Amino acid sequence: MTNPAIDIIAIGDAIVDVIATCDDAFIAAHRLPKGGMQLLDIESADRLYAAMGNARETSGGSAANSMAGIAAMGGRAAFIGQIADDQLGDIFRHDMQALGVHFDTPALRRSDGSGYRGPPTGRCLILVTPDAQRTMNTSPGASHLLAPEALDEALIASAAILYLEGYLFGPELPRAAMMRAIDIAHGAGREIAFTLSESVCIAGRREAFTDMIDRGRINLLFANEHEALQLTGASVLSEALAMLADKVPTLVITCGAAGAMAIDRGERIEVPAKNVDQVVDTTGAGDLFAAGFLVARARGASLSKCLETGAIAAAEIISHFGARPEADLKTLVTL
Amino acid sequence: MTNPAIDIIAIGDAIVDVIATCDDAFIAAHRLPKGGMQLLDIESADRLYAAMGNARETSGGSAANSMAGIAAMGGRAAFIGQIADDQLGDIFRHDMQALGVHFDTPALRRSDGSGYRGPPTGRCLILVTPDAQRTMNTSPGASHLLAPEALDEALIASAAILYLEGYLFGPELPRAAMMRAIDIAHGAGREIAFTLSESVCIAGRREAFTDMIDRGRINLLFANEHEALQLTGASVLSEALAMLADKVPTLVITCGAAGAMAIDRGERIEVPAKNVDQVVDTTGAGDLFAAGFLVARARGASLSKCLETGAIAAAEIISHFGARPEADLKTLVTL
Repeated sequence: MTNPAIDIIAIGDAIVDVIATCDDAFIAAHRLPKGGMQLLDIESADRLYAAMGNARETSGGSAANSMAGIAAMGGRAAFIGQIADDQLGDIFRHDMQALGVHFDTPALRRSDGSGYRGPPTGRCLILVTPDAQRTMNTSPGASHLLAPEALDEALIASAAILYLEGYLFGPELPRAAMMRAIDIAHGAGREIAFTLSESVCIAGRREAFTDMIDRGRINLLFANEHEALQLTGASVLSEALAMLADKVPTLVITCGAAGAMAIDRGERIEVPAKNVDQVVDTTGAGDLFAAGFLVARARGASLSKCLETGAIAAAEIISHFGARPEADLKTLVTL
Repeated sequence: MTNPAIDIIAIGDAIVDVIATCDDAFIAAHRLPKGGMQLLDIESADRLYAAMGNARETSGGSAANSMAGIAAMGGRAAFIGQIADDQLGDIFRHDMQALGVHFDTPALRRSDGSGYRGPPTGRCLILVTPDAQRTMNTSPGASHLLAPEALDEALIASAAILYLEGYLFGPELPRAAMMRAIDIAHGAGREIAFTLSESVCIAGRREAFTDMIDRGRINLLFANEHEALQLTGASVLSEALAMLADKVPTLVITCGAAGAMAIDRGERIEVPAKNVDQVVDTTGAGDLFAAGFLVARARGASLSKCLETGAIAAAEIISHFGARPEADLKTLVTL
């Protein structure tokens, strides 16, 4: 086992966020899952987009946001995700590389010359309500076509932690890619971190998550309280945490405005959320919390330092629109 | 002459802004025209984009921003500009329509099936320095292919004011389209407003501008002090203003942080700039000033009310990143 050249490598959705504000009546009229995420086919996404207001576009994707955050904190981050060879794909690639994230997954060609048009780079239509909650509507496009063949195996083996995004664990090809990546990382003696990404309840995933955890494939699990209950089927949180902590060496539970906690081989530590003058948009809060926790972990920090670093990064991201850092995170955290 | 169904119809660049922050060293290293605008070919734009940091994308274009502002103030605005049938074009069209701006110029097809690829929707790479100044680098793409055939003549005839953007007056096809639009608007008894758009000194334009003004084609001219000096060749501002006011019924001069003034058939009125808590990004300040002035003018307001409305709209836009309004402008101005 060689020293890791990279702190974290992540596999996740490669998508561009399309962010607009709206009121609660809009959320209700379009039956959107307020505060949550839903998948949309291209036609439904086009209909919703047509109804949305003036928007701004920024590169997104949950694990991709985390890697952007790690790079902004001075960490060494890499990302694997599937874009198409279109303008949104160019934007996604530019932003990752501009932030210093290693990203070289080849783009899918949309046209093969025969007139066939493959899916475009994925988009996430994000509606932000006046209470700063974000409601995400993802049209994943090319992102769900990430295949095991797209993995850079040497790169995965060179990272201290492999970080996997639950959103991308549903479709068949990316799931196979993630399972293959776990084998590579385990073979290289690395840690595997997984985030449930609000997607536990999507059909067919719960069993696969449980199986992975039962087989000891996951060293570090990120979840919120709701996901922990759904995954375990427990009726109270303490029971869910006990069940999960039994199987996962490090369990990290985010509790929104109430902060976060970690349970690590019997040790349990809590951290409050940082005060923020004005919460503008909670998009990316979980992603940046994970970023802070993971980069501190990769550098061998204590559990409480990992939680603290996560809380600082999350506080920055909710103080402005969008899920990529605007402040210089290097000045806010020490690695 | 029928009552106008639309307050303002504008012809201008249809482009998407790509906005990133940078320091002054970046501006110097890339020899960018700080505070100004330059045109870039596609290869140079790709090189600059590759060097830029993480960016956000919003629909832009000077006159298009003005129409967005007019719609946000509750005015009836229409826009004519050339996009391509690509993702950035879709974004531009979506945002105009979402803001309530009438926009139905057909997109240029990029592919004709023979493998030929036409130019993409235009982009403007905008670098914002810590002093809030924006430096614009435009790769106009399809925008410079706006042809007279794309004009909706009935729509132009139905607007109280036709507003023309100087940036788009350089290339041959859009200039021909603008000259044709002036004929249509004059024929319908409407007013013609023109903004010099910092582009006076670009080769070949000065003579064409002067000719248009000399022939009495322009009722309302927007310029800043620098442009007024360049256009007239005068050595002091008072001389330049006297020369222009002789030929243009209403002359509007913006002076950045010092405010603005108007000279209307001998009457001269000044307005100070509004106080802003923090100037974040001056992108769009001139566009929104014009928006406020024009919509008040279309509704028959006094000269001082027109200036005041422009100052309020400009103050909103410089308090945040991007050139499209974020606040509800209807609550800030009365029409």
